Amino acid sequence: MAAPLSEAALDQLFREARTTQWFDGRPVSEAQMEAIWELAKFGPTSMNMLPARIVWCHSAEAKERLAGHAMQGNKDKIRAAPVCAILAMDTDFHLQMPMLFPVSDVQPMFAGDDKAAHRHTQAFRNSSLQGGYFIMAARALGLDCGPMSGFDNAAVDADFLADTPSWKSNFICSVGYGDRSKVHARLPRPDFTLFNRVL
Amino acid sequence: MAAPLSEAALDQLFREARTTQWFDGRPVSEAQMEAIWELAKFGPTSMNMLPARIVWCHSAEAKERLAGHAMQGNKDKIRAAPVCAILAMDTDFHLQMPMLFPVSDVQPMFAGDDKAAHRHTQAFRNSSLQGGYFIMAARALGLDCGPMSGFDNAAVDADFLADTPSWKSNFICSVGYGDRSKVHARLPRPDFTLFNRVL
Repeated sequence: MAAPLSEAALDQLFREARTTQWFDGRPVSEAQMEAIWELAKFGPTSMNMLPARIVWCHSAEAKERLAGHAMQGNKDKIRAAPVCAILAMDTDFHLQMPMLFPVSDVQPMFAGDDKAAHRHTQAFRNSSLQGGYFIMAARALGLDCGPMSGFDNAAVDADFLADTPSWKSNFICSVGYGDRSKVHARLPRPDFTLFNRVL
Repeated sequence: MAAPLSEAALDQLFREARTTQWFDGRPVSEAQMEAIWELAKFGPTSMNMLPARIVWCHSAEAKERLAGHAMQGNKDKIRAAPVCAILAMDTDFHLQMPMLFPVSDVQPMFAGDDKAAHRHTQAFRNSSLQGGYFIMAARALGLDCGPMSGFDNAAVDADFLADTPSWKSNFICSVGYGDRSKVHARLPRPDFTLFNRVL
């Protein structure tokens, strides 16, 4: 039913948006973090399981702790970001499903030790999908993102998520207003034919 | 730097968009499939690895084959969709990285049987992120999506991906113009406090 968004909006979301690791100094407020969640939460997940959990490292102290678990090349990027979010997943997401999916009792599909691998797969796929919505929501709000997976997941989990042991870090993502003067040249993006087939 | 998109655009992408399993009969052209890819491909992936591979089941014959591998409740949804995409991932994505990430030789980080689990994790996380970009790109172009994970991944891989054995199905996603009269009531989306923490 809907018409395509404007060319300017498509540029902002996709074509001109750039991953940013360096920011222009403007802060990101808690209201902006909430606004990202209030958009991203509407993206679809399997049976509305919404497994993503987000820990926003906003204070200098929290960013310093997170930097301590990152690869050398990422430490200063985390410290310099207005906020760096730990995108985590709840591997016991099914405990929330009576609230999230009240239309039928789907907990038996996921409960029990013998379903742990299945829960992990579902949580990983769907929290990563939510990571995509998160990045698109931030861009839609005029912000830039710097997603990173170069860190010690187990160390982050032990330091930040010990009180909720079913939460496991997936990736981390800085958010702010990017410094365009420090963005690298765009890496190649192949056209349709290389990675797509039509049957 | 950028301003937020219009309220109407945020509605179209997130707040008013709905997962759709039933469509209004209008077709989706190959040009539209290409247009989705030409936006989604710009979303960030780790070291630009772009592990997603897409098989678009457009013909009635391809949709029928795909429906044969789906859960009972998904078969008719696949048959009725203008097109149903198999979102797959290349677990040997590193073989493309000299082209995708020419700035340094990162293949040794991923090559070898002892790195197979690491490659799987990277391919799964990043192709799922690309799934999020795919859904947002389709919505940005005025289309609706019906993502599904209720199918036999191994059977789909054997039937559709046997000639590229490193490609593994992740999830499937119908694309078209949704029939709004058949959309269910919105499932709950918790506010910021339940699944977010600020440190």
